[in-house]
Amino acid sequence: MVRESLARYAKSGVVTLEGLTAHGRGEAFDYLIGEETMESALLAEHTAAALLYSAHDPVISVNGNTAALAAEELAHLQKISGVAVEVNLFHRTPSRIKKVTRLLEDSGVVVLHGKRERLLPLSHERAFCLRHGIFSADVVLVPLEDGDRCKALVSMGKKVIVIDLNPLSRSARYANLTIVDELTRALSRIAGFLVGMDERTAAQLISSMNNYYFLEEAIKEIARRLAHALD
Amino acid sequence: MVRESLARYAKSGVVTLEGLTAHGRGEAFDYLIGEETMESALLAEHTAAALLYSAHDPVISVNGNTAALAAEELAHLQKISGVAVEVNLFHRTPSRIKKVTRLLEDSGVVVLHGKRERLLPLSHERAFCLRHGIFSADVVLVPLEDGDRCKALVSMGKKVIVIDLNPLSRSARYANLTIVDELTRALSRIAGFLVGMDERTAAQLISSMNNYYFLEEAIKEIARRLAHALD
Repeated sequence: MVRESLARYAKSGVVTLEGLTAHGRGEAFDYLIGEETMESALLAEHTAAALLYSAHDPVISVNGNTAALAAEELAHLQKISGVAVEVNLFHRTPSRIKKVTRLLEDSGVVVLHGKRERLLPLSHERAFCLRHGIFSADVVLVPLEDGDRCKALVSMGKKVIVIDLNPLSRSARYANLTIVDELTRALSRIAGFLVGMDERTAAQLISSMNNYYFLEEAIKEIARRLAHALD
Repeated sequence: MVRESLARYAKSGVVTLEGLTAHGRGEAFDYLIGEETMESALLAEHTAAALLYSAHDPVISVNGNTAALAAEELAHLQKISGVAVEVNLFHRTPSRIKKVTRLLEDSGVVVLHGKRERLLPLSHERAFCLRHGIFSADVVLVPLEDGDRCKALVSMGKKVIVIDLNPLSRSARYANLTIVDELTRALSRIAGFLVGMDERTAAQLISSMNNYYFLEEAIKEIARRLAHALD
């Protein structure tokens, strides 16, 4: 069902052909973790909720795949947290920005508008973002991000939360916090944790945050599952 | 480069949108094995060469992804072995069969022609194949096959060789021989092994063939690589 829906979004231009391949890579990793949230990912999601809770100007950076897969989960998370949503595309054209924005707004997401400027330390088109959006954010949640942009955001001093099923990807390694889980599961869990969050819990989770631990645990879990795959 | 080429083939209809996602899944597994042929895969490729060498009527079943990725390797393998090539698509339309056939023929592959009949124990469109092709074959090499068709071919008593980067896939488990390697690497290695093959070597390789061993070794190798991924 997800694949058919993505294929439809590819036909309408929301998702790129490269986005379909990227989704396939994610599927393979989700298969390896048993299509379930791992224990370490659950703690990462709890910590992500803490970061969003404590942020002054949190922003979610949304690309075509994210909008196609999780518009409703984004709307729900935004309703709970008030987090801002900026459309930020790797394959960036005005027409695609419009299509992705429309899709999100149709699902009830409030999307930031305005003129994109070259504000990120990246070459070409990928440097563009909104001054009152990602550029000003202290915490940025970037699901399904490319490694270079993740690195650039970290270099600007932002706390970057990545959702990426591949614990070995460049994004996963550059991020301050990596959630190795499927996108819709991760967003729903973060929303759930935000409901019960308080300042003390948030401070504790943030102070003990260790991304190396999250990556290592995810890799161990995949290796464990593989070891028993033929049993 | 491969991704861009596949995206072009998706635009021209050779590759389906679902095919792009499937390719992404393969990419993830290739990444996990280090984009190199594993030792166990090398033995599987040697054994595949033995099966093709000893076959009376070997056929390679080619789908859109296989044609898009490996038309030249198929032409080379066919030149060495004389193996027949049948275009057999999961998303089957006369127009796609023509496009895939044309692509193969442009690369020098001799493709079987004729009227497809419902000859495989499968539902719908997927039952179709050529009577003088896959239906009559004793050994079928099916790169990137779906699990059901692989199972159906095995149930007909054929020796089925699968090339699949996911050692846990249904195809990988149903096949008589699974090569856990990237398609173009696998086809080139099989061609190389065919050049030096003789009857005695072929008989030895076939008599000691154990697909469980190949799958287990592939999984162990992936787990070993994962364990050291963050070193």
